[in-house]
Amino acid sequence: MMKEKRIGAQTVKLSEPVVIASVSSVVGPKEGEGPLGGLFDKVTEDALHGEDSWEKAESKFVTESLQLAVEKSGKKMNDINYILCGDLLNQCTGTTFGIKDFKVPYFGLFGACSTMGESMSLGAMLIDGGFAENVLVGASSHFCAAEKQFRFPLALGTQRPPSATWTVTGDGSAVLSKKGKGPVITEITTGKVIDMGVTDTMNMGAAMAPAAVNVLTAHFKETGRQPSYYDVIATGDLGYIGKQLVIELMAKEGYEMGENFTDCGIEIFDKENQDTHSGGSGCACSAVTFASYFYKKLIEGSIGRMLFLPTGALMSPTTSQQGSTIPGIAHGVVIEARTE
Amino acid sequence: MMKEKRIGAQTVKLSEPVVIASVSSVVGPKEGEGPLGGLFDKVTEDALHGEDSWEKAESKFVTESLQLAVEKSGKKMNDINYILCGDLLNQCTGTTFGIKDFKVPYFGLFGACSTMGESMSLGAMLIDGGFAENVLVGASSHFCAAEKQFRFPLALGTQRPPSATWTVTGDGSAVLSKKGKGPVITEITTGKVIDMGVTDTMNMGAAMAPAAVNVLTAHFKETGRQPSYYDVIATGDLGYIGKQLVIELMAKEGYEMGENFTDCGIEIFDKENQDTHSGGSGCACSAVTFASYFYKKLIEGSIGRMLFLPTGALMSPTTSQQGSTIPGIAHGVVIEARTE
Repeated sequence: MMKEKRIGAQTVKLSEPVVIASVSSVVGPKEGEGPLGGLFDKVTEDALHGEDSWEKAESKFVTESLQLAVEKSGKKMNDINYILCGDLLNQCTGTTFGIKDFKVPYFGLFGACSTMGESMSLGAMLIDGGFAENVLVGASSHFCAAEKQFRFPLALGTQRPPSATWTVTGDGSAVLSKKGKGPVITEITTGKVIDMGVTDTMNMGAAMAPAAVNVLTAHFKETGRQPSYYDVIATGDLGYIGKQLVIELMAKEGYEMGENFTDCGIEIFDKENQDTHSGGSGCACSAVTFASYFYKKLIEGSIGRMLFLPTGALMSPTTSQQGSTIPGIAHGVVIEARTE
Repeated sequence: MMKEKRIGAQTVKLSEPVVIASVSSVVGPKEGEGPLGGLFDKVTEDALHGEDSWEKAESKFVTESLQLAVEKSGKKMNDINYILCGDLLNQCTGTTFGIKDFKVPYFGLFGACSTMGESMSLGAMLIDGGFAENVLVGASSHFCAAEKQFRFPLALGTQRPPSATWTVTGDGSAVLSKKGKGPVITEITTGKVIDMGVTDTMNMGAAMAPAAVNVLTAHFKETGRQPSYYDVIATGDLGYIGKQLVIELMAKEGYEMGENFTDCGIEIFDKENQDTHSGGSGCACSAVTFASYFYKKLIEGSIGRMLFLPTGALMSPTTSQQGSTIPGIAHGVVIEARTE
């Protein structure tokens, strides 16, 4: 069994494709005003979403999105064997308080903004390993909670440099299933922590780009494919600066990233009209972009094969204040429209 | 395959036992002075361990312990398919900076102080699912970093109430393998987030006890066993108060927890002479206690069957300051001395 599943040092192939039975996206008003606004399941009236703190609001996004994903799959919460989720808040409390009333066995994840890729990877392996029929995966973030925690309180009105990205407010989630209809996960390329010495907390794209390059080169070498094999290759939240760095670094590795290469942080906001500088970011960026825009294309058949590659910057304000670098990680998942 | 592996809603049985090929424990001086002092692989001279911050020290404990676990297994770092680790620091940076030079595919976990149970659970399932031959698992914490982050800076000299526990400084880790010699993991009972409304951040034992009870009752019901089936049942870091609560709550559920029931937070410190109040706590508490005291007993054969149950309090200073409760979680792993 081992030899069949392992393709290379970072890549495994599932013995049976795992179905992405449903997806859900619940986002804040700014995301609703962006180019993908019409594709989200729910856009809230304001970012507090009826709560009295940004953190409690994030948990409410988690609760609603996970419930909706389960509803849309036609299953019930007690059909779910495991929840695998995470977020950016200290001690991942966005997730804890979001899921605590579900009473489902839970594995908490921390992959920074790569969490959606991590949760899909582990969820698919638990199903293919015979441990689960249905796994609920997801990731959340909140612009206001993240700014307060990682950078400056919003009320300060601190100016943001052009290299900064805008944390997406919302939660994207999915029900992965052993059986059923929908696009499928077929392969997983797991990232390593990559540290190229970037220390600029206002340029996360540069910090994460080498981690994306690590997974992309491993994936292409281990599968023998070229970037053109995929209809879409979508990184998580590199933004304009990080995407350009990946193109340049991949060229040095001998791979030409073509028109099929994009970044969820570029897709989710309108750079010209939304003042989001280098693009969207946060755990929710790749999660909600996949759970709306890309999932729809997979269902429609306008995408046949996709390499989904959420990216994460593994830092904290404490480590940055102590002069440490910002290591990155990325988690690659191959998703295919099932045509049978 | 599914029906064979799933025993109940929270419990799965591996198709083949997964070997705990080696363990490693690197701890600070206070842990070295405790009753298990002679059993740890390394006791550092001081808690800063040659670094200039508590956070950097924690990462150094991680690095040394994981390297040592791999060495003791007779394998090399590039024999490891995945690292599954986590810690308590904001954004799990203790782990990130501890493993970043290893260049091994990494899944970051957040289970608060239950992380060792979570990492052993997922690691064993990845191996049994055919995705890995060897997985490196572990968890770390640091008293000084935790006090600063969760409670008060040490320099304030704030008095600690009798219900408070003492965060263990160190890292405990293990190499899980498909083949080889050593004690084995046979079953996994995964916890749910349980919130009984406790809000006292100085009484983590009370906050976590209901989560331990959830896993214990699920495990006994789903396997048809009684607590007496095990030579040892060891929760992670409930301490004296939390352990007593588990005994009382389990009695209400109809289960008598006997002399075989203990808690790693009780084993690791000498309550009378080390001023540790309700006991030890932190991710490292269960990790290093297992990786020294219990592993030795399993190897010697003085323990045949063990239910290892690391426990975690899922809170942050932010959520507590906002008046939120402290939900708990626990992750159960059945470990057996292999006698063949």
